[in-house]
Amino acid sequence: MFVVKDNFYHLISDIYTIYTMQLSDIGLIGLAVMGENLALNMESRGFRVTVYNRPAAGEELVVERFISGRGKGKNFFGTTSLTELVSSLARPRRVMMMIKAGTPVDDVIGELVPLLSPGDVIIDGGNSDFHDTARRVKELAARDLYFIGMGVSGGELGALEGPSLMPGGSPEAWPLVRPVFQAIAAKLEDGSPCCEWIGRGGAGHFVKTVHNGIEYGDMQLIAETYSLLKNRKQMRNEEMAELFEAWDRGELNSYLIGITANILRFKDVDGTYLLDKIRDVAGQKGTGKWAAIAALDEDDPLSLITEAVYARLLSAMVDERTEAAQRYGSHAHTDSHIRTEDLQEALYAAKIVSYAQGFSLLKRASVQYDWDLDLGSIARIWRNGCIIRSVFLQKITKAYEAVPDLKNLLFDTFFSGKIQSSLPAWRKIVSEAILSGVPVPAMCAALTYLDGLRTLHSPANLIQAQRDYFGAHTYERIDRDPGIFFHTDWTGVGGDTTSGVYTA
Amino acid sequence: MFVVKDNFYHLISDIYTIYTMQLSDIGLIGLAVMGENLALNMESRGFRVTVYNRPAAGEELVVERFISGRGKGKNFFGTTSLTELVSSLARPRRVMMMIKAGTPVDDVIGELVPLLSPGDVIIDGGNSDFHDTARRVKELAARDLYFIGMGVSGGELGALEGPSLMPGGSPEAWPLVRPVFQAIAAKLEDGSPCCEWIGRGGAGHFVKTVHNGIEYGDMQLIAETYSLLKNRKQMRNEEMAELFEAWDRGELNSYLIGITANILRFKDVDGTYLLDKIRDVAGQKGTGKWAAIAALDEDDPLSLITEAVYARLLSAMVDERTEAAQRYGSHAHTDSHIRTEDLQEALYAAKIVSYAQGFSLLKRASVQYDWDLDLGSIARIWRNGCIIRSVFLQKITKAYEAVPDLKNLLFDTFFSGKIQSSLPAWRKIVSEAILSGVPVPAMCAALTYLDGLRTLHSPANLIQAQRDYFGAHTYERIDRDPGIFFHTDWTGVGGDTTSGVYTA
Repeated sequence: MFVVKDNFYHLISDIYTIYTMQLSDIGLIGLAVMGENLALNMESRGFRVTVYNRPAAGEELVVERFISGRGKGKNFFGTTSLTELVSSLARPRRVMMMIKAGTPVDDVIGELVPLLSPGDVIIDGGNSDFHDTARRVKELAARDLYFIGMGVSGGELGALEGPSLMPGGSPEAWPLVRPVFQAIAAKLEDGSPCCEWIGRGGAGHFVKTVHNGIEYGDMQLIAETYSLLKNRKQMRNEEMAELFEAWDRGELNSYLIGITANILRFKDVDGTYLLDKIRDVAGQKGTGKWAAIAALDEDDPLSLITEAVYARLLSAMVDERTEAAQRYGSHAHTDSHIRTEDLQEALYAAKIVSYAQGFSLLKRASVQYDWDLDLGSIARIWRNGCIIRSVFLQKITKAYEAVPDLKNLLFDTFFSGKIQSSLPAWRKIVSEAILSGVPVPAMCAALTYLDGLRTLHSPANLIQAQRDYFGAHTYERIDRDPGIFFHTDWTGVGGDTTSGVYTA
Repeated sequence: MFVVKDNFYHLISDIYTIYTMQLSDIGLIGLAVMGENLALNMESRGFRVTVYNRPAAGEELVVERFISGRGKGKNFFGTTSLTELVSSLARPRRVMMMIKAGTPVDDVIGELVPLLSPGDVIIDGGNSDFHDTARRVKELAARDLYFIGMGVSGGELGALEGPSLMPGGSPEAWPLVRPVFQAIAAKLEDGSPCCEWIGRGGAGHFVKTVHNGIEYGDMQLIAETYSLLKNRKQMRNEEMAELFEAWDRGELNSYLIGITANILRFKDVDGTYLLDKIRDVAGQKGTGKWAAIAALDEDDPLSLITEAVYARLLSAMVDERTEAAQRYGSHAHTDSHIRTEDLQEALYAAKIVSYAQGFSLLKRASVQYDWDLDLGSIARIWRNGCIIRSVFLQKITKAYEAVPDLKNLLFDTFFSGKIQSSLPAWRKIVSEAILSGVPVPAMCAALTYLDGLRTLHSPANLIQAQRDYFGAHTYERIDRDPGIFFHTDWTGVGGDTTSGVYTA
């Protein structure tokens, strides 16, 4: 039955397992960089990990390579089938997937379900759509299985050394997986882990989606800052690196500011700056888009993050950009109206608005889906391990500790003070960018959002009048209570019939 | 079996039908304002129309009221059941729904299908999601029935006097419905109808979605202009009405500019301006959001329309706006840096970008769904009858006639000339708005889009470097061919494993 050549390793493993009777603490499916590093992280914290990679063309030897490579001499058990993986696990079994989101996740769940026993837990650590996660929680509950959709942030290094983890799904499963995930998570200065229970259903993946949206926003704001420094002040990479380093020592301290300095300094093999050789076409894996779509679905104006997503899409329109540059010119103005001090203020203020928008979306979704999200705790989880980690997040936790039902982060005393003191510099920077033609869509979107929010009399009365004029959509009046809708026959020929049910 | 009180009207109708043996040309389901006016329009063009309204609480007498009211003495046949409606129609039967999008449409289709015969046509004239329409076309094809999802624009008056119609779905059904819809559609100066076949599947409703998105954009741009005139120049309603009227006589000539003048002048019963009494909370029915979501799904940066949607959402955050106004102040600066001539240029230029973005999305979706959309024809259909009708659209038709595979409207000679001559004024207006705190998110988004498009070296190289740094997402190089992806171990500890399959 066994062919030694193919199954030698398999056989040895089995014998080893039977001999030692040692069962694994957790099974991990998917040995791309994130899965590989998470497995190493778990093992380093004292957990025995069974690893498995679905066989695909050119990837048959992934498990073997890992066990004999980075996993060598460590407490791993490599398997070549899901049956073997499941039979190697202590109960209740914990099986974590680090695979491509979408159909593959449903496929693996479908294969796992018949092998598992009631009370076992499946964890999806990929970037899954939170709607899918909510559905999977329900589907598996009907089979007496638990499902956790967990946001994992921190990139490859975070996965290895301590990521930020956002688990949600079946609350009953939290105590079963908590020891593993809080052990491998990044820690704060007080030793507390960057991993807390987020909420039911798709809450974990939703929060990860917003995290990624915020990450898109932070990166775009830094890119716009870099663009202004480079194009408006003609600063050299080394000078910019020094500036970002200085900022990283102050209130802008964050992982992304720090790595920007490193990137600006990084030399290619030929001694030139690598950054200048990199093509300006931004890729994406879709979670930024999901954040924007979630905002539109939840009626929340997530403008900065959406503009960050659009900026990446625009960068990828290479043919159009080439033709537009020819037709309209691609100026690089060099006057020095821009002060780096102002730029720092603008970056910080726009960042506050970005987070205010992101947390506004979280708050709204929490009500909509009855998740009871702890916004201060979410900010805390993001303070280490993940891509958007920063000292800034501590201020957000403090804001929610001070006022738990805070309507908007922009109404926190610290943040509104910062915004107010930064406003003149911020307006100046954006205005200069507008005049000189350097695109700063995210800084602009943040500023127009703030101005829109603080406008007591917006021009939306005209929009309502137009809608009623052409579509009988009705309007409310300032001299009557909200919720009473009026229709006017503006032209004298439209009739009294409204588009809805109420006519006044 | 029959109770005279309830069925008297029913009985009379039946007797009339049997007596005259006159079958109707088309059946119309749904007598809210749009359905009612479309029915009147059809009848006025010589078609006999059977009308039906689904009974709901308080709406039992809708058909009777219509027949004895606006439909009195006209060639209508009122029915109180779908069976009756279907039996009153000439074959192949044409049944049009003007009902709420979503489940109701599927419900009515479900009730209709058993009553219809192969070759009959169901038309959905509501604002349906194009994905639903594509599904329904398929489902009904399996029952040998035709389905048309048709965009209808023009509001209540358009429905009555001649709307713009965007039919898509089963191409075989087009010849069967064409005589009716081209007869009731708005006409251009040469007598040609604002109704042409759009494409298969959900094409008609997709084009309507983009139309509505553009409508959101146009309305927001006008609202921002109104806001600047009112807050920065303290112009009175009457002065603004005169300005909009003057603009309506020039290149900005359009339905929305025209009605804005009328709205600004309109007096309430007490002699004061009605506009000033209207609450600044903009409503919406979701099609603007759909346009933004479609753009995100299709990777197209539809930034101006998205900002227009967000501006409406922001206007509805009344509690937050009140608190923000208290905390940040709600200034109304009164200096006169803004010239109306500049504002006109800004409005026109931003409008060009909005349409360029909308048509870019249409072009992309056309390729994605294999619709083979005729963009020049779509612009022509919108030239009369619909809410966004304008002289401007003729320029778009001309642009596509001149260069059928035009990459982007911004590369058309006329439009790029206009943009270039308007740029200084446009930059000045946006810059002043930014400095003075009057929110102009749509004008801003259009300008940063244009600047993004014409930027030869965008800062997206930094974004790619960051993504590779923290996530091993790889990047392309300017000194190598596109499509070859590289990964750098930036920190020396990340390892060579990329997040994807390729490592260099």
